[in-house]
Amino acid sequence: MKNKKFFLSKAQDNYPKLYYKDIKPDITEIAVSTGDSILLDLGEHAVGHFSFAFDNVNDFIDAPVRLIIKFGEDMREIEDDFSLYKEGLSKTWLQEEIINLDYPQKTILPRRYACRYIKITIDKTNKPIKLFDFCFRASTSADVSVLKPAETADALLSKIDLVATNTLKECMQSFFEDGPKRDRRLWTGDLRLEALTNYYTFQNLEITRRCLYLFAAGDCDKLGFLPSYIYETPYYFSGSAHIADYALLFVVTVCDYYKHIGDTGVVNDLISICKSQLESFRNTLDENLIVTRQEGWFAFIDWCPGLENLTALQGVYLYTLEHFSELLKSIGDEEHEKYSIHLSEVRNACKKYLYDENKHAFINKLDKGQFNVHSQVWMILGGVIDGEEAKKLLVSCLDNKNAKQPVTPYMRHYVTEALFKLNMRNKAVQYIKTFWGGMLEHGADTFWEAYIPEDLDFSPYDNRTINSLCHAWSCTPSYFIRKYGL
Amino acid sequence: MKNKKFFLSKAQDNYPKLYYKDIKPDITEIAVSTGDSILLDLGEHAVGHFSFAFDNVNDFIDAPVRLIIKFGEDMREIEDDFSLYKEGLSKTWLQEEIINLDYPQKTILPRRYACRYIKITIDKTNKPIKLFDFCFRASTSADVSVLKPAETADALLSKIDLVATNTLKECMQSFFEDGPKRDRRLWTGDLRLEALTNYYTFQNLEITRRCLYLFAAGDCDKLGFLPSYIYETPYYFSGSAHIADYALLFVVTVCDYYKHIGDTGVVNDLISICKSQLESFRNTLDENLIVTRQEGWFAFIDWCPGLENLTALQGVYLYTLEHFSELLKSIGDEEHEKYSIHLSEVRNACKKYLYDENKHAFINKLDKGQFNVHSQVWMILGGVIDGEEAKKLLVSCLDNKNAKQPVTPYMRHYVTEALFKLNMRNKAVQYIKTFWGGMLEHGADTFWEAYIPEDLDFSPYDNRTINSLCHAWSCTPSYFIRKYGL
Repeated sequence: MKNKKFFLSKAQDNYPKLYYKDIKPDITEIAVSTGDSILLDLGEHAVGHFSFAFDNVNDFIDAPVRLIIKFGEDMREIEDDFSLYKEGLSKTWLQEEIINLDYPQKTILPRRYACRYIKITIDKTNKPIKLFDFCFRASTSADVSVLKPAETADALLSKIDLVATNTLKECMQSFFEDGPKRDRRLWTGDLRLEALTNYYTFQNLEITRRCLYLFAAGDCDKLGFLPSYIYETPYYFSGSAHIADYALLFVVTVCDYYKHIGDTGVVNDLISICKSQLESFRNTLDENLIVTRQEGWFAFIDWCPGLENLTALQGVYLYTLEHFSELLKSIGDEEHEKYSIHLSEVRNACKKYLYDENKHAFINKLDKGQFNVHSQVWMILGGVIDGEEAKKLLVSCLDNKNAKQPVTPYMRHYVTEALFKLNMRNKAVQYIKTFWGGMLEHGADTFWEAYIPEDLDFSPYDNRTINSLCHAWSCTPSYFIRKYGL
Repeated sequence: MKNKKFFLSKAQDNYPKLYYKDIKPDITEIAVSTGDSILLDLGEHAVGHFSFAFDNVNDFIDAPVRLIIKFGEDMREIEDDFSLYKEGLSKTWLQEEIINLDYPQKTILPRRYACRYIKITIDKTNKPIKLFDFCFRASTSADVSVLKPAETADALLSKIDLVATNTLKECMQSFFEDGPKRDRRLWTGDLRLEALTNYYTFQNLEITRRCLYLFAAGDCDKLGFLPSYIYETPYYFSGSAHIADYALLFVVTVCDYYKHIGDTGVVNDLISICKSQLESFRNTLDENLIVTRQEGWFAFIDWCPGLENLTALQGVYLYTLEHFSELLKSIGDEEHEKYSIHLSEVRNACKKYLYDENKHAFINKLDKGQFNVHSQVWMILGGVIDGEEAKKLLVSCLDNKNAKQPVTPYMRHYVTEALFKLNMRNKAVQYIKTFWGGMLEHGADTFWEAYIPEDLDFSPYDNRTINSLCHAWSCTPSYFIRKYGL
């Protein structure tokens, strides 16, 4: 019986090994007094625990010392005044501690941080103190010794690959986290892209299996969809959100796993869950095979403000159906034909009901007539149109200010995937260079959760300070660069 | 060779056993949200470590929780706004922590606190949480099973005795601390009074010996005086202050120890240091045997603002000479006569040079003509005057608004001692009831560092919030009540 206990046990069996590295910042010892601030630079983004020591300079410290320690993924975060943050996502994600130390000692802060910079402000000391023995013990489940450099002659792509693999490495902890600074959860949408990039980089199969089993152990909602995120501290908990596209992408992640690893054991464990996800989605289709809005659920697609996303969601369904029928065929499951026939039928329905022949685009009532890149990309990835027609559409919407554009590297991954699907290699490279390369121009050590070139203050949460600057779903340039030998 | 190493080794041999008690506050479990505050009442003053747990109420906590935890020895301290504190003593003594907890867990705060009340404010949580498992693990080296109730029929004295023994108990940790909230040091002036009260209450001889040896290991200043305070964390350190009256009181503490315990081993270890302290003080006397101000030293006597204290200091010298010559006589040291002769000579000098025959008081140039209780008390304790003359003087200054009055229970101890010396038992009891009983009227669970009945906001440090409300030198009512069977 493959029940919750079985899946959790499998998840435990695949607990990844963690690798630790002690990073010593640029400053080794410094004397400071009340009001002084020092800035430590780790030289790289790191996820882990910070320790330091303090001692007297000339005179014995006869009162506790109070320090304010702030961690920033970049310098803008260090410079931001956290006290001004009032928005909805909890301010407690902003990484700052106020600590009192009774006397000179070595201190290991108990919490984990994600940062490159550490600012220590001496809020109060009676007498000068010296700070020393700074150490940031970084952790990851990525085995960096396995990673080969990308074989690209393009200097920018090479740099992008480096930052992308760093991004993935940082998010690889005891599971694939979405962002090691904030949320620190296992989300399906991130998992799919992390797992994909992992096959071409660190090849840690344990963590991938573990995450698949963690989701499999989750409680489905009334529609039958898997949870979209998982916590494992302080105990296993499958979240209350059940995002439709994420439920589908769980299936895609299983398909990817088989395609890259050929491990039938995992597929056998998870196949019935995959089928149930597709079945649940199919139940949402109307008589024309078009998705209908259900009570109490939503689709994600992208953080683009005001996005209408049902057409894109329908594309995700097609994309999943295609991956899944291929998987079934590969493993000799007789149901593969049933899925591929359904795939064709839904594709035809999409062309018929969602494509506007006059506007030559997927602009329709389902999305209130909104023109967005997301619909076009997912319809292309879903195989509703292809060839020159698809190329023309994709170029026209990507260069069109009237079309809503993606704001997350997550959605931009699928744009890039569509460009490769249509053999638009040069455009794809240009797209990667513009959007991931653009972050590099702003000094990114890891790729960000959200990025709009013309609006560096953009945040899905109304305040840039809370954004995650090392976000799992932004790691896929390494997948493209390495898979396509860019 | 009795060197620093020898004394530190003896101090280590006498490390006291610590007793622990888990105090559960009045609240056992409570659900709270952002902005809520709860107040825990331990029901008694306690010194130790605080722990608690938190968990979800209905919904999983998906972001760190930030708590502000404030510890107060009384409710006024809880209600004070610590952010307004700007005075000289380090604000870091004010007991408040801001902590971030990533997920439901049991938390033991790493620092030690002295408090009766604990206020927890929920600075931020995404969802309601429940707080529970509150525990304050109190520590003391006082063995409360040894303590017998005071045999007094007076209800107020009985209550004063209870609070006084609690005060001592709280200050008894790995050494006699001055105040467990603030300073947390071993000071000679406090030690003398703690040790004295300890003989009549908890009878912990190890801690007394330990403290004597800790001072003996200290580095003397250029005048030859022992340090006035000792730290033992993070390592042994003898302070840079060398207070003249405190150096003398070290000698008195050794004398007290022999008088109560009759242990010649300890006396033999410390006798030469005692002699050197008296020798050093003698070097400060002028040709008339009157103390002269030395460069780089000072006398304490009391925190009374503007106090001129050289006459009082001269009294401490006499008091010490008397105790010491008695000790030498008891152990058969031939030098005792030398000290008692010198004692008589100095007493005569004091009467001659420091006593104003017209004003019938110790008002003199040494103290710029200032009339204060301190000079009168110490001259009486030093045996310069006695009998009716002394009684009259003491009464006249204690009831006199023109005479500077003591502000600390430390100095009030010596006032009370003078009253007993002059057989003014009723006056002494009244004095105890007025000044220690007065604190009880304000709800004291332990006796305070400083107390002026008509000025509850008085602080030696310009801000009441920083005052220690459990201060070693305030514990001596139990000594008087038990010694004199009040």
